[in-house]
Amino acid sequence: MSEPAFQRARSAEAKQAREAAILDAARTLGRVRGVRDVTLTDIAAAVGMHKSALLRYFETREQIFLALTAEGWREWSAELRADLGRRSEATSAEVAAVFAGTLAARPMFCDLLAQAPLNLERNVSIESVRSFKLVTLKEVELIGGELGRLLGLDESQGVDMIATATSLAGALWQMATPGPRLRELYMSDPRLGHAVVEVEPRLNRVLSAYLRGLGVGAAATS
Amino acid sequence: MSEPAFQRARSAEAKQAREAAILDAARTLGRVRGVRDVTLTDIAAAVGMHKSALLRYFETREQIFLALTAEGWREWSAELRADLGRRSEATSAEVAAVFAGTLAARPMFCDLLAQAPLNLERNVSIESVRSFKLVTLKEVELIGGELGRLLGLDESQGVDMIATATSLAGALWQMATPGPRLRELYMSDPRLGHAVVEVEPRLNRVLSAYLRGLGVGAAATS
Repeated sequence: MSEPAFQRARSAEAKQAREAAILDAARTLGRVRGVRDVTLTDIAAAVGMHKSALLRYFETREQIFLALTAEGWREWSAELRADLGRRSEATSAEVAAVFAGTLAARPMFCDLLAQAPLNLERNVSIESVRSFKLVTLKEVELIGGELGRLLGLDESQGVDMIATATSLAGALWQMATPGPRLRELYMSDPRLGHAVVEVEPRLNRVLSAYLRGLGVGAAATS
Repeated sequence: MSEPAFQRARSAEAKQAREAAILDAARTLGRVRGVRDVTLTDIAAAVGMHKSALLRYFETREQIFLALTAEGWREWSAELRADLGRRSEATSAEVAAVFAGTLAARPMFCDLLAQAPLNLERNVSIESVRSFKLVTLKEVELIGGELGRLLGLDESQGVDMIATATSLAGALWQMATPGPRLRELYMSDPRLGHAVVEVEPRLNRVLSAYLRGLGVGAAATS
């Protein structure tokens, strides 16, 4: 079996380059098709490797997408915290809008947020899921710090807020992105108009009311 | 190929009995193992039919579990509305507690709530997904009526509340029910203690603050 695009890695640098190429291919395919429809064979083909060669770098397709979920957490958290960090104060409505806007701007991350607990975390080694969990816990702690500073949320309230925002973003994205036949049904059957979901407005409304209802800090006055 | 437990259905009644037996078997297997791990072959074996015979009654495993999701909506909605219907008034905290309690008491329904938009709705005929959607829309309307009566929620707020409660119940249940290896990791690594999720308390806290934050009707004074 030949490996058209790559020769066997001879150094740590070459190994890293291959891992990055695999992640790039999975990211591109996931964005275009949705994560559920991307197989390990698809990724191998896109990166120009044979599947058996790819398995020297990642144990399963789920490990690849779990790595992209961790990347998604780091990138989303960085942008969210950069936005919140520029503010010396904020209302609950403003914080909710930043959460909803930054999540809705990342469709593949929303897809992955729903896929992770259902599928991805269950088909990888214990070490892969440990390193994924440690990434998310660190980002939750960092985001929680901003929520404490701006709205006075305590640690438990911060964790609830972040879990609610990410869980809802994942679930709403799945509902808002049905397969082609379901989409056709929504458009053709007037009884089902209500079933069409828009991620950002609903997420914004729900998170805004939730933060206001906590009645803490500046949130109580917004 | 013989059909040990059933002879070929000769009447509408016999057909209904077989469909009910198939749904019973899927329900039992889904409760014990989790929906993700139940195959069509498993269901056929449990009901004493060959897989090819079972396919005369249901088109895919997803259609079977989507039928159980519709059943879950009807049963949950009936219990929720019976509880709310006995009250002449209620605070937002009381309504949140009824939502959280009735959802958390239905682990397989929570599992199905997460599986439906990701998997089940995508692998069935357009007629199956239409009839499923019409069931959920009807129950959402009925529950929305109670939310309007007790808390003064308008139609859009009612839909948001029900979508939030069911989306979060599905996502939190998935997080609270990891595979055996992930569960072991949570128990053995003290850094991951925070990652363990309890469905009912978190759902109760989030829905209670959300309803309070809407600031409508009795919710404003609870």
